[in-house]
Amino acid sequence: MLDFEIKYKDAMARIGTFKTPHGEVTTPNLMPVVHPGKQTIDVKKFGAEIVITNSYIIFKNEKLKEKALKDGVHELINFPRTIETDSGSFQLSVYGDIDITNEEVIEFQEAIGTDIGTSLDIPTAPYVKREEAEDDLKITIERAKEASKVRKNLLLNSVVQGSTFPDLREYCAKEISKFDADIYPIGAVVPLMEMYRYADLVDAVMYSMRGLPEDKPRHLMGAGHPMVFALAVAMGCDLFDSAAYILYANKDRFMMPDGTLKLENLIEMPCSCKICTEHNVDELKQMPQEQRAKLIAEHNLYISFAEIRRIRQAIVDGELMKLVELRCRSHPFLLDGLRRLQEYKDDMEKLNPSSKKSAFFYTGYESLSRSEVSKHIKKLENITPKSENLVILPHTSKPYSKHVNKEYIKKYTPKIPTFYSNTNNQDFQNSDIVIADIPFGIIPLALDEFYPLAQNESPSIPDENSKKFVRELIQSYTNKYENVLIHRKVIENYDLNGFKLMEKDLILPEAKVSDFIRLKEIADYQFGSGSGEILFGNNPEKITIEKSRKTGKIRHVYENDANIVNMRASDGFLVLSDLGAIRLHKHLKSPKMRVVVSEDSEPYAIKGKSVFNKFVLDCDENIRRNDEVLIVNKDDKLLACGKSLLSSYEIKDFNMGQAIKTRKIKNIEELI
Amino acid sequence: MLDFEIKYKDAMARIGTFKTPHGEVTTPNLMPVVHPGKQTIDVKKFGAEIVITNSYIIFKNEKLKEKALKDGVHELINFPRTIETDSGSFQLSVYGDIDITNEEVIEFQEAIGTDIGTSLDIPTAPYVKREEAEDDLKITIERAKEASKVRKNLLLNSVVQGSTFPDLREYCAKEISKFDADIYPIGAVVPLMEMYRYADLVDAVMYSMRGLPEDKPRHLMGAGHPMVFALAVAMGCDLFDSAAYILYANKDRFMMPDGTLKLENLIEMPCSCKICTEHNVDELKQMPQEQRAKLIAEHNLYISFAEIRRIRQAIVDGELMKLVELRCRSHPFLLDGLRRLQEYKDDMEKLNPSSKKSAFFYTGYESLSRSEVSKHIKKLENITPKSENLVILPHTSKPYSKHVNKEYIKKYTPKIPTFYSNTNNQDFQNSDIVIADIPFGIIPLALDEFYPLAQNESPSIPDENSKKFVRELIQSYTNKYENVLIHRKVIENYDLNGFKLMEKDLILPEAKVSDFIRLKEIADYQFGSGSGEILFGNNPEKITIEKSRKTGKIRHVYENDANIVNMRASDGFLVLSDLGAIRLHKHLKSPKMRVVVSEDSEPYAIKGKSVFNKFVLDCDENIRRNDEVLIVNKDDKLLACGKSLLSSYEIKDFNMGQAIKTRKIKNIEELI
Repeated sequence: MLDFEIKYKDAMARIGTFKTPHGEVTTPNLMPVVHPGKQTIDVKKFGAEIVITNSYIIFKNEKLKEKALKDGVHELINFPRTIETDSGSFQLSVYGDIDITNEEVIEFQEAIGTDIGTSLDIPTAPYVKREEAEDDLKITIERAKEASKVRKNLLLNSVVQGSTFPDLREYCAKEISKFDADIYPIGAVVPLMEMYRYADLVDAVMYSMRGLPEDKPRHLMGAGHPMVFALAVAMGCDLFDSAAYILYANKDRFMMPDGTLKLENLIEMPCSCKICTEHNVDELKQMPQEQRAKLIAEHNLYISFAEIRRIRQAIVDGELMKLVELRCRSHPFLLDGLRRLQEYKDDMEKLNPSSKKSAFFYTGYESLSRSEVSKHIKKLENITPKSENLVILPHTSKPYSKHVNKEYIKKYTPKIPTFYSNTNNQDFQNSDIVIADIPFGIIPLALDEFYPLAQNESPSIPDENSKKFVRELIQSYTNKYENVLIHRKVIENYDLNGFKLMEKDLILPEAKVSDFIRLKEIADYQFGSGSGEILFGNNPEKITIEKSRKTGKIRHVYENDANIVNMRASDGFLVLSDLGAIRLHKHLKSPKMRVVVSEDSEPYAIKGKSVFNKFVLDCDENIRRNDEVLIVNKDDKLLACGKSLLSSYEIKDFNMGQAIKTRKIKNIEELI
Repeated sequence: MLDFEIKYKDAMARIGTFKTPHGEVTTPNLMPVVHPGKQTIDVKKFGAEIVITNSYIIFKNEKLKEKALKDGVHELINFPRTIETDSGSFQLSVYGDIDITNEEVIEFQEAIGTDIGTSLDIPTAPYVKREEAEDDLKITIERAKEASKVRKNLLLNSVVQGSTFPDLREYCAKEISKFDADIYPIGAVVPLMEMYRYADLVDAVMYSMRGLPEDKPRHLMGAGHPMVFALAVAMGCDLFDSAAYILYANKDRFMMPDGTLKLENLIEMPCSCKICTEHNVDELKQMPQEQRAKLIAEHNLYISFAEIRRIRQAIVDGELMKLVELRCRSHPFLLDGLRRLQEYKDDMEKLNPSSKKSAFFYTGYESLSRSEVSKHIKKLENITPKSENLVILPHTSKPYSKHVNKEYIKKYTPKIPTFYSNTNNQDFQNSDIVIADIPFGIIPLALDEFYPLAQNESPSIPDENSKKFVRELIQSYTNKYENVLIHRKVIENYDLNGFKLMEKDLILPEAKVSDFIRLKEIADYQFGSGSGEILFGNNPEKITIEKSRKTGKIRHVYENDANIVNMRASDGFLVLSDLGAIRLHKHLKSPKMRVVVSEDSEPYAIKGKSVFNKFVLDCDENIRRNDEVLIVNKDDKLLACGKSLLSSYEIKDFNMGQAIKTRKIKNIEELI
């Protein structure tokens, strides 16, 4: 069994690690294809932790076979770390028939000491008739089952097939997941990439993901162009393999993260790598082909591994989707892939962390489909009107509540210095106030320091899709209110008609939110409608709020001397303290915010020890990485609270690693 | 005098060369800032052809001054190639006063053997009061004038100032251009870049460009972050200077073409350069600060020069705007800069080549503002209705006329196998047929092989701006026609209402264009309305068309035995032959397509020798690089024809280099 552990998360991407008999592998990663007989480039020096080679080629060549059986495949290809082998499926798809059975190929891979072997699946081409895809799939699934029985210590690849029928991909993924393979490659997608059918690639991958467990790495088979890595990683792919670095080099092609450059067209070496800085174009052109191909292959490996590192860094920074959006503009059909991905917003959101290190940078209207935006729209439902009136103001600098007065006065009401004494102020003071802005559409003023509503940037010149998005959100949000007053600027910006302008177009001088209201609204938004009242009641005088001297932001909230919540400075999230956890547990019905742990782990949770995935019996499906959770036993008794390190979907699938960073509740034993 | 020569063009960008007493410099280029006393990094090994150092720092330090005066500045900073020096304007802007006059600083720079010196301009900060900017400007212009008189052999920088008042930038540029400087820096833009006010930067640069001559390099002063290079180059900036490589390194910051990464946040080295592949993050973190800063500075130089090379390659490939659009998504405010640039469509088009090597790749709706699109819309005016009926069809694969039948039948009319016998065919056959598509909106079927109407790709999932663009273009184009029939698919795709659907929604089986009509329509589009008739008359039987056996495309067109035009395979442009040139010259009125050459050069032109810029008296302002032109004398006698290598705006400004690649017209002497 392969133990995969997640270290960092962003979108559906994971930085993880797994161990094989020949070392640790970090994902996402690239497995250079090493030819068992003809390899000239030593991929170790580029940082390869894992390579892929073909067991069928070894099997078919007497000399290679003999050496592999005698000395092992690691000795054969001179690579001491993890080796994955392919089974000959590719040859099967090309020649129609090969002279080895599924059982034999598994046994052979085991015999030569492969770390990760592959069953003999049927790679069905894209766009075939459904019947053909279904027939092939039966065999693929059957062989996956057989392979899982035949293998002994071999770690096992089980390939998702299903051609371009998304439902077959999902079906296949679900079926083969039953046989406990260790890595799930997604197969037969090379033709889609060769035809630049990236939208169909997205369908194939995303439907496969729906059927695959979260606790195993997935390998996008045959994907070796760095242009596609970021998109694939964001969809949950962990491994790539590249024969492309040498195939492209043999045709004098330089891979770049934004496309391919042909030597014949070059006047300048295109990148910052050793090859590109130590050689010039003329020199390369005059070189013997073989020598040149080796250098270009090295460039291709440098750039491919650099892209893998860049992607990992983006995951850590919580900026992967920005990188994906940049990379996908390299080709209009890759952009099509990105646009198709918009249809999988819900899939993406299920695995996306609630809070990230970096600000949300808008790169184009496609950014409006990121999980942060979909999640905000969903969470807006938690906000209940506190008044019959809604006032919608245009955006200022962030956080809005700090700028909503002085900037407005300067910018939008320069000619009316007397607005402070405006008689309508009273009406406005009793209104709910929201800001209209891209990319989050509507932001209640009280939430203006909550991640990512404060931590985002978009261009000041809006595009039509973004305007339409804000317009539609305003239209649906205003249904909750009897009176809606909109500032002239908002109406202009988003072409809104049929709304009542703000009286005399004045700005509410007291467009401020009291700390008490702010706290309650954040609680509603973060934990669900009504949570504010549960936590803080209705009497502001009972509540003591401590603020940071430096930033003026809320830090600690007490009732009498009991700490209810604290506010995390980095993202404005409320962090439950003892009283807060107890109150939410009492009033929010199960399964809300719950992580249910097994009996054996109760004592550990009570002591504040981390909750491990294997002890989790169940959890609220709305939990995401960085969310606050209530740790309970199967009778819904509160044991502790904490911060989730994973999404509910991961917690359910994983048997390894930490799920929750627990915080002890004082004297909780007495309360149970 | 600095002789600047253009080698390649794309957008407003140029790959050019100029010579100084210390060697040739290729543009675009980066001038690393070298400190005259404290430099530790040898920038030569990164490929620097030109550096910048500060003459005022040398002047103020007795030791440096003495050595510089004795051995020259090249010896002082150990750099044998071109050196530019700054004048102390920066120090002036910081300290308010410095103890050297404009005259002295020019003389000093001359004395120490600087190649390119700078006058003591006044760098006015952005967003100051207009009066302050105007007052400063007077001094800057005065000093530019003085400097041009004082300098002897020194090549001279003359800086464009004007703060954030675009009109002052243009005014300044025009004024200082009168004094024959050699390079035009655009000054005091660093604060704009530091504040991420890229939209205002675009205004400052584009208005400066309106006032600057085309035949001198422009230097975006203080721009040293690779993130901004592509955008600046596309606006016509040729030189950058970077102290940033070392300043960023001192703060542990890695420059990337898509932003900046801080070492403290890194888990992986971010790029493919030598530093990033030979060191790891932990190693760097543990190093002494000075040693680490040196390595990061080297990374910064590797990545900056790689970006310069990447940009040059993009210019050669005609793909610069794609690169700009990618880079500008690195930060929302850089995207704002790109969106602001849309307002300068006309400026851009004036210098953009008519035909390029690469296909037009759409990266987002911002691509609709590229010169190719604006130019197409303008050229559509050349097309006169040939019928009262217009039929608008949805797009197929390209070229449209090859796919318009079979793909349509399969895709849109699968249920009607009898459409061939449809009685309405006759109506359709008498109609003008256009295709609706992104990014060119409307494409007359006859033009479907003309660059870039065939050579472009956009995603199949359209955005709202693109839909709006096509919709508006359809609405304005259809004004020319009495009856407009639109295919259902077009109406759906672009939300068009109030148009008559195609009868029974059938597809014209003969949606083909005859070669004769195709030729005439291309001629109208390429050379102007009526040119088709001028060139080919009205009787198809008089015209012989030779096609390529391999591609089936038109190659040569004759009347009797006389060659009228040939068609260039790469872009579908008509290339004038003797008869074609004579006919167009006879019927198109001057200045259309004309390049007027001086008397001395007449004999050379007649012999088919290249026309040099210095011999051009005047030319049609609509001429762009790769356009066909008629070479005439000042009495409008036809001398030869040819292909322009530059835009009319460049031809007018340049005194150096080739303007036209001439083609001899047989027996032209007899015709004059």
